[in-house]
This record gives sequence, C-alpha cells and structure tokens, in this order.
Amino acid sequence: MVARATDPARPSRPRIAVSMGDPGGIGPEVIVKALADRSVRTLARFVIHGAADAMHEAAHAAGVEPFWWEARRGSPLVETARAHDALLIDDRAGYAHAPNRTAGELSYRWVEDAIATARLPAADPMRADAIVTGPISKEAWSLAGRGRYPGHTELLATRFGAKRHAMMFVGPSLRVVLASAHVPLMDLRNVLTIGRIHDAIDLGHDACIRLGIARPRIAVCGLNPHAGEHGLLGDEEERLIAPAIRIAAEQGMDAHGPFPADTIFNAAVATPARPAKYDLVVAMYHDQGLIPVKLLFRDESVNVTLGLPIVRTSPDHGTAFDIAGRNHADPGSMKAAIRLAARMAAEAIVQRSTIDEPQESAPGRRDRS
Amino acid sequence: MVARATDPARPSRPRIAVSMGDPGGIGPEVIVKALADRSVRTLARFVIHGAADAMHEAAHAAGVEPFWWEARRGSPLVETARAHDALLIDDRAGYAHAPNRTAGELSYRWVEDAIATARLPAADPMRADAIVTGPISKEAWSLAGRGRYPGHTELLATRFGAKRHAMMFVGPSLRVVLASAHVPLMDLRNVLTIGRIHDAIDLGHDACIRLGIARPRIAVCGLNPHAGEHGLLGDEEERLIAPAIRIAAEQGMDAHGPFPADTIFNAAVATPARPAKYDLVVAMYHDQGLIPVKLLFRDESVNVTLGLPIVRTSPDHGTAFDIAGRNHADPGSMKAAIRLAARMAAEAIVQRSTIDEPQESAPGRRDRS
Repeated sequence: MVARATDPARPSRPRIAVSMGDPGGIGPEVIVKALADRSVRTLARFVIHGAADAMHEAAHAAGVEPFWWEARRGSPLVETARAHDALLIDDRAGYAHAPNRTAGELSYRWVEDAIATARLPAADPMRADAIVTGPISKEAWSLAGRGRYPGHTELLATRFGAKRHAMMFVGPSLRVVLASAHVPLMDLRNVLTIGRIHDAIDLGHDACIRLGIARPRIAVCGLNPHAGEHGLLGDEEERLIAPAIRIAAEQGMDAHGPFPADTIFNAAVATPARPAKYDLVVAMYHDQGLIPVKLLFRDESVNVTLGLPIVRTSPDHGTAFDIAGRNHADPGSMKAAIRLAARMAAEAIVQRSTIDEPQESAPGRRDRS
Repeated sequence: MVARATDPARPSRPRIAVSMGDPGGIGPEVIVKALADRSVRTLARFVIHGAADAMHEAAHAAGVEPFWWEARRGSPLVETARAHDALLIDDRAGYAHAPNRTAGELSYRWVEDAIATARLPAADPMRADAIVTGPISKEAWSLAGRGRYPGHTELLATRFGAKRHAMMFVGPSLRVVLASAHVPLMDLRNVLTIGRIHDAIDLGHDACIRLGIARPRIAVCGLNPHAGEHGLLGDEEERLIAPAIRIAAEQGMDAHGPFPADTIFNAAVATPARPAKYDLVVAMYHDQGLIPVKLLFRDESVNVTLGLPIVRTSPDHGTAFDIAGRNHADPGSMKAAIRLAARMAAEAIVQRSTIDEPQESAPGRRDRS
C-alpha cells in the first residue's frame, strides 16, 4: 500500500513539498543554498513550489549550479518529471524586495499547492509526507486579500481541519511550544484558556516523544511578571495555567510550573556546568517564547507545526527584504528545517508502514538517532 | 559644603546604604560574600540595614571573618560608629526561609531606613549617596500590610517624589530600560502611554550618558508579535510607541523602532563577529526586557532605578528561598550592583562638587572609564 516504504534501498526516504515563500524575500536564496548541500538534498525527494526566475537569480548569485528539474505549474510535464529528486514547479514570475500584492498572492498559492500535495491519498506517488515553508510576508498576504490567515500555521490548521494546533521551536539545546502565536498581546485575555494551554503542553509532550525523548520534562511559563507573584501581579497563573498543568500531570505528563518566564529558560538550557532540567518550555505568547529562541540560536532553530496529520517545519526567520537579493542570507535555519522535516517524516512513514504491514517491520528499524 | 569631596586622598569615595532584603532569603549571604571581597569593600563606605544574626550565620557558612561594626538600631552608638567603613545597623532578629509577615515588615523597614539616610542633608556625614537593596519578597511585604508598593522601585519613587522613573538593567554587553515593570500583563493597556514610553527612552538616554556613552544609540521594542506587523497584529506600535520615538528623535536622541522584540536583542548585543548596533534597548514590559537579560547574564546584571535624585542599584535576582541558608548563592550580581552604585555615585559627587566648587575641579577628574 505505501509504495515508497517497500523500496529496499531507501525504505523511508520521504517526499517533501517546499513552498518558496515570498519570491522577493530570502526564501529562494536559502532554499537554493540549503539544497545545494548534498548532505541535505539526499535526505528526501523535493518538490519546490515557487518561481524559476527567483531560483535562478539566487543560484547565480550564490554560484550554485541549478540542481533541479523544472516544469510549469499545471503543465502535463509535472507528471513525467515527478521521478526527479528535486523538482521545481514553476509559477509565473514578477516580484520586488518589498511587500506587494502580486508576491502575496503567489506565495499564498504556493502554500496551498504544497498543502494540496500533502492531502493526496497516501498511495499517490506525488503525495508529500512533509511541508517545509519559506518565509512569507503577512503584509503581502494582507495586500493580496489573503489576510484572513495571520500566518502559515493558521492556514495549515484550517486546511487539515486540525482541532488543535501549536507552534514549536526546536533549537540545538532548547525546545519551546507556544500556547498562542500571532495574536495582539492585549487580546491574550480572550485567547488563553485552560484548554488551549493544556493543548500546548499535550502537543509538545507528544512531539518530544517523536523526537526520541521517552518521558519529556516540561516547564510551563507564567503570563505575568514573576509568574504573578502568588496572585499579586495577575491571576491568570492561578485561574488558567496551574489548572492546565494539573490536568496534564493527572494524565501522567511530567509537567511543572507556572514558572517566572525570565528565569525558567536558564533551567531549560544545558550549560557546560550542568545539564538541562527540562526538555520543553511551554510559553504563553509569541515573544515570551521567541526572544530566548532567537537570542540563543539566531539562524539554527526550526519552527514545527504541531497537531497536523503531516509534518510541517520552516526556518524561524522572516522574509528579510532588507538583505534579499544580495546573497547575504544564512541557510542554516532552512537546512535545519529540512533535516528535521525529513527525520520526523521518515519516522512517520516507518510508523505508518509498521501499522500497515506489521510483518515487514522490526523494532530495530525505528531509528531515532 | 560637600565635606567628603574635599578629602584629598579619596575625593569621591561615596557612602552606600545597603538594605539586607528579606532576612530569610539570600540577601545576607550575597552581602557578606560581596563585601568580603576587598576590591568591592574599598570602593565606598557602607552602612548595612539588616539583622546581625542573619549576617553572622551567612559569614559562618561562607567562612568569612565578620568585617563590620555593629550598632543596635536606634542606639546612640550608631553615631559614634559612623566613622567605620562597614557599619551594620542591627535590627531585631527572627526569620524563616519562606515569605512571612515578620520578615516582610523588617525588610520593608530596612529599605525605609536606607531611604531616610539618603534623604539627609548633603552636609550630614551619615548621608548616603547611593542605595543598594537586597532582594525582598513581595509576598512577605503584602503579608506585612506593605503590599501598596509592588517593589523597591515604586517605594523609592514615592519617597523621593520622583515624577517619572524607570527600571534599567545593566549587563556586561547589554543595557535594557523597562517602560513598565510590576504590572499584570493584561493591565498594560491602561499603563502604557506615549509619555511613559518617552520617559523610559529619555531616562535611559541620560543614564547611558552618565555611564560614559556620549551619544547612545537606542532601540525601542514593539509590544505585539512582529512589532504589530504594520498594524495587522495590534495598534500600540503606531498609536503609542512610534509617537514616543518621534518625540525623542525630535529632541535630538538617536532613537529607533519600534522593532520586533524577538530579534532586536541580537542587534544590541556584541558578538565576536560584529559590534553591537545599539547601546540601549527600551522594552515595553518586565519579561520582554528581563528574559534576554537573565538568559545572557544570569548573575552578572544589575538593576538601576532611573529618575531618583540619588543612585539606587540592586542585584537582579530574587530572594531564592529555595537555596537560602546553604551557602550556594553567587554574589556576582550583588558585587556588580555595588560596583555600579559606587561608580555612579562617585560620578554624581564629582558633578555636584563641580557645580558647588567649580574652582576645585578640572575636566580631567571626570573619569568615565
């Protein structure tokens, strides 16, 4: 049933759909540079949804020989070219290094295209096991009339009908899940609930297990200064966060807190002097989780969407219009995003084939290294 | 008029009032350990407001010979002992390593005592030029009926009649000012104003100049994710923060922003690869500013209260009841707090004597190294 899983040479080499992101941002450049690295390109088979001219310009600036096959979006060639390990599905061109309507519409469409391939039946040879998304401009999406979705995560959650979802950031020595993401800070009072905070704990817990941590130790942040200082500086800790932690603990998760956010990250990061006390930090809002992630890892951390039936990762940087087109962008986060997607998707394929064809799989095949 | 400034041997050796903080916390321990370091103790003359038994216990545990004179609070001996370079004004004892009413009342009183000495006339030989505060428990203050002040900063601002004030954190490679501090996060909508944000920029600008930076480069954070993404994720950036920056820029300050808080700290911290782009970051709220400070510096950063007529610093850690009494506390932040207080107070004394006695001071005396 799962054809790829029966290939004896590469039993779990997944197919990854890559959306270019805004063609005027650094998306094309980091995709070209990441996949020019053979240690990355051989991890999976790639279908890139984007614009050929942006890819060629980035490859030329970076001194990279084009390594991909091209087929026009909608042309019958797509079907014949699908056997290639790096296929670019070329959409129409035209972009600028600033948010604009055209680039907004294109980058939105490419994400929808990637989603469509991920929603194909499991037996379809074009089906994507994972999606890696290049950075989009939310302002450009809004200009293109696509402002309904504040970002990839919300669009993906809608298309896959995910009842609950969360953003996770995986850095070399820290994992963070957000209980809320692209929400105006003062709207958190309408957004944070016991259920939502519990979802973040639960989804993060499951993701850690998939990343090979048998019993994840989870620290949950408070919302207020000093985690509310026992109710003196806000009541969300007692009213919402502590109950969510209590439910998770009753379900057997090793969850603790709420802790003051300004000190808990120190406990969750290993130093030469002592190991990390926690495997995962659950942050209540965007900046609370992303300030430490970006300060510690700059271009090495990966954004993972939890709660979808497929794997989705992305680099954690934005379009960086200010440096786009100059060959200055660091592909480190995109490489890490592809590596993590390939690893999680391979794991998922093995799990799926284990369920479909139990006679073919032995426990030793579950490589979580 | 300023007697100490005419001492030719030590023209600017200031007097520092130290409040012990909660006697059951790590305050006594870090004070003992910091002042046991002669390179710290010789920077100033110290009057410690606290409890002798806590000091002795900490000194015994740390293997430190008591280096201070003791006089009972309110006894006439205080006057005769004032010539000593390290004087402990001993209050009654009794404490536990947990928030409680007695310790709350004592630690509150010691801050008031320190403030009282800082408010003495300039000519009074007991007058403190600076206050360094040990960590208090806000919960203990509340239990003692002193909950009106959420922390030192607010109490000091009230006692000194400061029309505007702000908290600043000084680490080895980053300076941060907060536009709000001990406020429940969801109350920021009632607290943040153009005036308040401008005050933080302005006070931080002046403090940087006092720290020897002639023209401080200032980065101001947004409040919302991605600094509101041009109004898509909240309007405080356009409504409050940008106008405050504009006013500061019109006044000649080198102020920029609002920037997304999750990336601006990278630009403000020097790395081996490139120098810092900014000398000061203005954060909108407690955790936004303190997550990076504590992640980068752990026990090396110092809290400075801006807007007071005297210098006030403190270590940026709390009471740490969980490790109190075990000789595990790191005095690094307390040492840094005392060093910074001594430096800023010496600078202030020189400035004052420059104004009072212009014939005695030459520009070369203004040591800003």
